Amino acid sequence: MNVATKTYKPINFAEKLSLFSDQWQPRVLAELNDYQFKIVRIEGDFIWHDHKDTDEAFIVIEGTLRIDFRDGSVTLGPGEMYVVPKGVEHKPYAEHEVKMLLIEPRGTLNTGHEGGERTAQNDRWI
Amino acid sequence: MNVATKTYKPINFAEKLSLFSDQWQPRVLAELNDYQFKIVRIEGDFIWHDHKDTDEAFIVIEGTLRIDFRDGSVTLGPGEMYVVPKGVEHKPYAEHEVKMLLIEPRGTLNTGHEGGERTAQNDRWI
Repeated sequence: MNVATKTYKPINFAEKLSLFSDQWQPRVLAELNDYQFKIVRIEGDFIWHDHKDTDEAFIVIEGTLRIDFRDGSVTLGPGEMYVVPKGVEHKPYAEHEVKMLLIEPRGTLNTGHEGGERTAQNDRWI
Repeated sequence: MNVATKTYKPINFAEKLSLFSDQWQPRVLAELNDYQFKIVRIEGDFIWHDHKDTDEAFIVIEGTLRIDFRDGSVTLGPGEMYVVPKGVEHKPYAEHEVKMLLIEPRGTLNTGHEGGERTAQNDRWI
C-alpha cells in the first residue's frame, strides 16, 4: 500500500513579501536549475543598465511598473510580464511601490555591468 | 534631444488565456534565453512522469493545483509557486480547472520521458 504522507509547502508571494519592506533589495525565493526566482519591492527611479549575457523576466504582482528603453517603454500591471532581451539598456520606474518577480540566471546583478551604489546584495534568500 | 516613442506591449496572462479553452495544451508566451514561459489550463488527473534533465516551475494564476509526489503532495493557490526538482516523479491534479504558468527549458515535454497520448504539442506559441 502506497501511503503518501508528506505535505510540501508552496512558495506564497504575499507571505514572502510580508517578511521585508526595504526596496530595491531582491530576495531569492527558489531556483530552477541555474535560474533564480526573486521577489522585490521597488519605487521611484533606477539607473540605466543592461545585462550583457542574459535576458531578464519581470512579472508584476502588485502596482504598476514602467520599464524605460532608449527608444520607448513598456508598462506592466498585475498579471503581466515582460522579458527584456540581453544587451538592451533599460531603467525600471515605479511612481508608487511595485511588488514583482524577477527571473534570471543565478549571479545576475540588479545593476548589470554598471555597478555603483544601487547594486544590491546578490543571492540573498528569503 | 532623446525622444522615446515606442510603446512596447506587456504579456497579459488573462488576455492570453482568453484566446483558448482546451486543457492540457500549454502555449508558449515568452522565452528567457533558452527557457520558456507557458500558460496552460488543466483539470482532472494527469499521468505520473518526471523530467530527467530539468527542474520545472509552476505558478498558479487561478484555481487550486495539487501536485502529487510518490511520498506526499503540495497544494498551490493563486499567487503561489513550486519548483519540482528534476527526476522527481509527479502528477498534477486539479478538481476544478486551474490556470497556471510553467517555466522550463525550451523542448521540455509535458509528459517528460513517459510519452503516450497525453503528450501535448510542444513549442506552440500564442
